[in-house]
Amino acid sequence: MNMISGNIVDVRNRRIFKGEVHFEHDRITQIIPTEKVEDQYILPGFIDAHIHIESSMLVPSEFARLAVVHGTVATVSDPHEIGNVLGVKGVEYMIADGKKVNFKFAFGAPSCVPATTFETAGAEITPKEVEYLLKKPEIKYLAEMMNWPGVLFNDQTVYEKLNIAKALNKPIDGHAPGLRGEQAEAYVKAGISTDHECFTADEARDKLKHGMKIAIREGSAAKNFEALVELFSEAPEMLMFCSDDKHPDNLVEGHIDELVRRTLKRGYELFDVLQAACITPIDHYNLDVGALQEGDYADFIIVDDLERFKVQATYINGIQVAKTNQSMIEVQQSEVVNQFNCDPINVDTIKVKVNASNIKVIEALDGQLITNCIIEQAATDEHGYLQSDTSKDVLKMVVVNRYKNAAPALAFIKNFKLKEGAIASSVGHDSHNIIAVGVNDKSICKAINLIIKEKGGVSAVSNSDEAILPLPVAGIMSNDDGYKIAENYTAIDKMTKTMGSTLNSPFMTLSFMGLLVIPNLKLSDLGLFDGKMFKFTSLSED
Amino acid sequence: MNMISGNIVDVRNRRIFKGEVHFEHDRITQIIPTEKVEDQYILPGFIDAHIHIESSMLVPSEFARLAVVHGTVATVSDPHEIGNVLGVKGVEYMIADGKKVNFKFAFGAPSCVPATTFETAGAEITPKEVEYLLKKPEIKYLAEMMNWPGVLFNDQTVYEKLNIAKALNKPIDGHAPGLRGEQAEAYVKAGISTDHECFTADEARDKLKHGMKIAIREGSAAKNFEALVELFSEAPEMLMFCSDDKHPDNLVEGHIDELVRRTLKRGYELFDVLQAACITPIDHYNLDVGALQEGDYADFIIVDDLERFKVQATYINGIQVAKTNQSMIEVQQSEVVNQFNCDPINVDTIKVKVNASNIKVIEALDGQLITNCIIEQAATDEHGYLQSDTSKDVLKMVVVNRYKNAAPALAFIKNFKLKEGAIASSVGHDSHNIIAVGVNDKSICKAINLIIKEKGGVSAVSNSDEAILPLPVAGIMSNDDGYKIAENYTAIDKMTKTMGSTLNSPFMTLSFMGLLVIPNLKLSDLGLFDGKMFKFTSLSED
Repeated sequence: MNMISGNIVDVRNRRIFKGEVHFEHDRITQIIPTEKVEDQYILPGFIDAHIHIESSMLVPSEFARLAVVHGTVATVSDPHEIGNVLGVKGVEYMIADGKKVNFKFAFGAPSCVPATTFETAGAEITPKEVEYLLKKPEIKYLAEMMNWPGVLFNDQTVYEKLNIAKALNKPIDGHAPGLRGEQAEAYVKAGISTDHECFTADEARDKLKHGMKIAIREGSAAKNFEALVELFSEAPEMLMFCSDDKHPDNLVEGHIDELVRRTLKRGYELFDVLQAACITPIDHYNLDVGALQEGDYADFIIVDDLERFKVQATYINGIQVAKTNQSMIEVQQSEVVNQFNCDPINVDTIKVKVNASNIKVIEALDGQLITNCIIEQAATDEHGYLQSDTSKDVLKMVVVNRYKNAAPALAFIKNFKLKEGAIASSVGHDSHNIIAVGVNDKSICKAINLIIKEKGGVSAVSNSDEAILPLPVAGIMSNDDGYKIAENYTAIDKMTKTMGSTLNSPFMTLSFMGLLVIPNLKLSDLGLFDGKMFKFTSLSED
Repeated sequence: MNMISGNIVDVRNRRIFKGEVHFEHDRITQIIPTEKVEDQYILPGFIDAHIHIESSMLVPSEFARLAVVHGTVATVSDPHEIGNVLGVKGVEYMIADGKKVNFKFAFGAPSCVPATTFETAGAEITPKEVEYLLKKPEIKYLAEMMNWPGVLFNDQTVYEKLNIAKALNKPIDGHAPGLRGEQAEAYVKAGISTDHECFTADEARDKLKHGMKIAIREGSAAKNFEALVELFSEAPEMLMFCSDDKHPDNLVEGHIDELVRRTLKRGYELFDVLQAACITPIDHYNLDVGALQEGDYADFIIVDDLERFKVQATYINGIQVAKTNQSMIEVQQSEVVNQFNCDPINVDTIKVKVNASNIKVIEALDGQLITNCIIEQAATDEHGYLQSDTSKDVLKMVVVNRYKNAAPALAFIKNFKLKEGAIASSVGHDSHNIIAVGVNDKSICKAINLIIKEKGGVSAVSNSDEAILPLPVAGIMSNDDGYKIAENYTAIDKMTKTMGSTLNSPFMTLSFMGLLVIPNLKLSDLGLFDGKMFKFTSLSED
């Protein structure tokens, strides 16, 4: 029997009182009001309502080790990235690795693997496999249904998956950026009950009106907090917080605790904010997470006060997993699973000529997944091959199929602003092929081959140096110490900026340049893709 | 670490193989195929997909003690009866009492308390309280939505409850006897996903067509097995088994194991039958019950062979809870909660005169909840008061409000065939007031007062004897040894038959004579009720 006393923040009943929390094994046995208590606040733990753990570049056990320091006790996690690499086996890897530590992962069954038929992924997750996954007690929901046109236009496979989730009474997550009005209504009526993709409050209101819950997203990639926080004055009971993607360096700095602090600073009501951060995800996803009530799992955190919200301790299943600034979870031995079957490439494979003086160029936009398609004059070498032109900042981009040997796909891109060398990554949404950008073919090949040698990672090659952060697990995660990975990621990011890039996060931007479902011009391993027309297009101006 | 070997019936993967089940604490750690095994069959435990535990007259802990002997490891249970007596407090009593033993109760939030406004119940369960209950992890679903007209005609309170369940992603149970065609479709589209009230296979087909799951019901009261078992050749994956109501004497004899045996005898496929008995309820209600897979809760049973299906052992959470014909669960100390606030009555309060020579008489039908309204000549005493007439088998029936002192309600009823004395019960659906029938006022009062003295029970008064089975918990359950209760119930049932009743189960029939939602003529504490017109009616012929 253990006991901790303090000011108990009982979010479910919207009250604060002095008391003792008694717990035994993994459960809270009693909560007893009493006057003499420690000068601290006890509250339910924080929950990230939508995060792809893979984006942290850490395996689940290691993600948990870093997250608990910020008072996070649970995540609702779509293993979509590893699903694209390894299918069901990848999802099962995430479940098994997560179980190594005392943390509450609620995984979803990926609904859209592969993301499109215009790229080569490592696996497919069929409706039958979705059913197999959803029947597992560890799988709590059907993960984000990104194929919203399929929902609106009655795609049979989409509905097969939706109906399986309904028959098993597991919630269905949405992903419908920008969907409004009748389309939003039809999407909700198909049984989809959350969205984390709203970028304006008005869009969120359209979805809230039909009973959808909205996860306010603020992660390493998309940042919607500023646009959506005002919803706390309208429908606080329908909100949750999420990060979607959280890079290792950002995870070291903070998590849902940061969003709680920021929301409270705006003057929103304490219990409304904690309801979103701690309770609504439990109720929506039926998580096996405690809400600081008698009989609940002993999952709670201790903070110094209700302004700074500094996490002093995190408890999960009655066991302390973090103290101030320090994780008490041990680094685990995580095995390596992967699918990475391509040989090193040479410069001859990434040469290209066109019969045109102008070419289509991808214009990357800092901090955005969307790109523009612009036209630039083609720069060629003495043999007529297209080449990078640093004076105009038009650089060559290459995508290499990592699942088998195949001819690389080529394009040109603006705004990476590298003045030397190249960078490459095997984190490339959604198929996670190798994607690279550079000022010359030799550097590009070198950066790509560094990754091929390690079977996954992010790499940078400058005039004087080369660096790689290996990601051996599925080519997208490391099984090493998370704090070390965060440091190394910071270092290679800095190196890229020294090479000239002015992007806020060059590797992140790079990883979305192959994400075909977001327009306008993207590059998959199969070629240049027009995301507006949803078809392949040619490099030369039409 | 524990190990049991045998022929493993892996229902999820539809295969049987020789192997060892290894388990530690509450989980199965490994299942290892091996050749040398015990000559026995290991399979997942049985689940009753819909049962009101209160119908067993036992508190949950004691119900569990009897049920595990038949290989039952879990029930999906609507605490509707105690809800009508004690509201939320009653539901919480069931949860707390169930937790005393190693058994998996999945309770629902009662959706229809009180059942109608034409009777006096002990409590109401408001939408706010439904929400409070559904947020508990122990509450797995919104229990049977009996108000199907409210669903079809957009009753606001009904939809408030349905929407709460949907927002919390908890399944909604149906109850729509006889609903067909478009009405069935509209009922399903409101989000209601099961029905256990079908009495023909065609009716079930109508509901299956729209994605509903059907629980085949065979209990002490309603018996639909014969009518529905053929569905196993059409939609086995959509079926479950349930008893709905199970009296103590019947529970001693068998449970879901009986239905498994009966279905197999008809030649239906083993895995289809076990899917319905063991697996589909887990998947539909997201139960915390194991399905005999690695990582699952160690919930399983051992049987001698796959024909007789004799249960030799039941394991729950890795602990053996039953061996052949013997429960290993101890009798618990269960506290008494109740709401029983009426004083003894005297014969003057149950006298009635009418200005008519003919009166409406309830015709009870053996084994059915439905009654007929027939007309009989009124028999009167020398003062003109209506009285029972054993020669025509028209007996006086009385309902007494047990929640406060109030004038009793009176009616006359055919088919109980008592030749002497009276019987009474405080189990009276759905409000559980006291209901009695007898050949003279003195006996009727005596039978009622026996129950009032004990604050609940079933009683019988003959010319020479009187007997009561006390039910002190909410006036509908005993906290005593279940086997003793079964014996005493058998004894008082036999006594009633000695007194002349030819009904199969007189106390059961009696308990449904106040169930207003099933037509045609019923009696509540507030008066005689015409279930077809859904309004009160007079005793004299119109």
